[in-house]
Amino acid sequence: MTRILYDLAAADPDLRFSPYCWRVKLALTHKNLDYETVAWRFTEKDKIAFSGQTKVPVLVDGETTVHDSQTIAEYLESHYPDQPSLLGAPACRGLISFIKQWTELTLHPAIVRIILPDIFPQLDPTDQPYFRRTREAAFGKTIEQMAAERDSHLPAFQEALAPLRRTLSQQPFIAGSTPNYADHIVFGALRWAACMSRTALFAEDDPITTWMAALLTTYRFGTAGDSAPV
Amino acid sequence: MTRILYDLAAADPDLRFSPYCWRVKLALTHKNLDYETVAWRFTEKDKIAFSGQTKVPVLVDGETTVHDSQTIAEYLESHYPDQPSLLGAPACRGLISFIKQWTELTLHPAIVRIILPDIFPQLDPTDQPYFRRTREAAFGKTIEQMAAERDSHLPAFQEALAPLRRTLSQQPFIAGSTPNYADHIVFGALRWAACMSRTALFAEDDPITTWMAALLTTYRFGTAGDSAPV
Repeated sequence: MTRILYDLAAADPDLRFSPYCWRVKLALTHKNLDYETVAWRFTEKDKIAFSGQTKVPVLVDGETTVHDSQTIAEYLESHYPDQPSLLGAPACRGLISFIKQWTELTLHPAIVRIILPDIFPQLDPTDQPYFRRTREAAFGKTIEQMAAERDSHLPAFQEALAPLRRTLSQQPFIAGSTPNYADHIVFGALRWAACMSRTALFAEDDPITTWMAALLTTYRFGTAGDSAPV
Repeated sequence: MTRILYDLAAADPDLRFSPYCWRVKLALTHKNLDYETVAWRFTEKDKIAFSGQTKVPVLVDGETTVHDSQTIAEYLESHYPDQPSLLGAPACRGLISFIKQWTELTLHPAIVRIILPDIFPQLDPTDQPYFRRTREAAFGKTIEQMAAERDSHLPAFQEALAPLRRTLSQQPFIAGSTPNYADHIVFGALRWAACMSRTALFAEDDPITTWMAALLTTYRFGTAGDSAPV
């Protein structure tokens, strides 16, 4: 059985930058499930039309097609119960929900103000008009206005990261001594930030840098190639 | 055996406002442990000198004296293992650590900018000079300057709460269907905010209001009296 994940790519087909697709790649690897990725671009709606979706991640697992990173995580947890748990006990699931909301409502907005103007030139030219139109409508600003403001948002980004940085200075993973889906969610956001930002966002001795490297090592991802475990 | 908790009080001895003492009160109740509180003021250093500490919470549990809310929570978990778990499985403890850091590094700073000038007039007159001196040194501003800026910080406070509010719109407690120490930590912060702010911070239909009331009910605290379970 071949498992296929449709995975958002930049102009460079190996540059995979979606925070939601990263969650799924780490979750699949956590569950010891082999998979292949298909590079997908924003405007390739026809390529995933079979799934009824217009966005990735879309996972095809044999006869089953699942979309939305949260639904995929729950699917993997219930369909592969003998593999290491992604979500843990009920109390743990509750806490992961909070970390998901923190990631999406505090971290993602702080990141997007920095990297959005850096993403645009890295996209495939066929995707750029779509990206410009949808993002400029969402933010009520041109990409060029966002680029002019970019650096002014760096302090708020670092401030938002303070709880994560302190946690990771005291324990190796968000879930403690080994990672779980909470780590995958936050990693997705910061991988997106780190791989698209035109300036380095984390110092080499930052606990966040150490943690990101430890996750890539734990799950046998290469630090250069982004498409699948090595 | 009498269990005694030294609990920070305002001029009104029944107004108990310390976020860290609230964590301990909820944790003791979660563990089904009876206790009495002693109203303690910032300047009553002699009253807790026996413990070697200058700040509360200080818990006297029979022959054992424990201080610091985190140390107390770990003590209760290990010494009363047959009572309901506060911290859960190892992964759960890891996630609670993150929520603790979020509370202390994101939520507390957002709260203190709003309520600090409101706390001052509610303190016992003997505590006011101590509070003014230590807080003005810490913030590099007078209490009157902080009062003038207070309302400008309300939007950032509500923004910081967005992940909590969204989580509680989807599940009854931070830890899911029943509360654990993660709920106690965040409740401590918001009880501190709600009981000292001179303006209402939460609407009646706010999921945060519902959750705070549910915690008080779960642990049989009165909504008016603040010193101990009813």
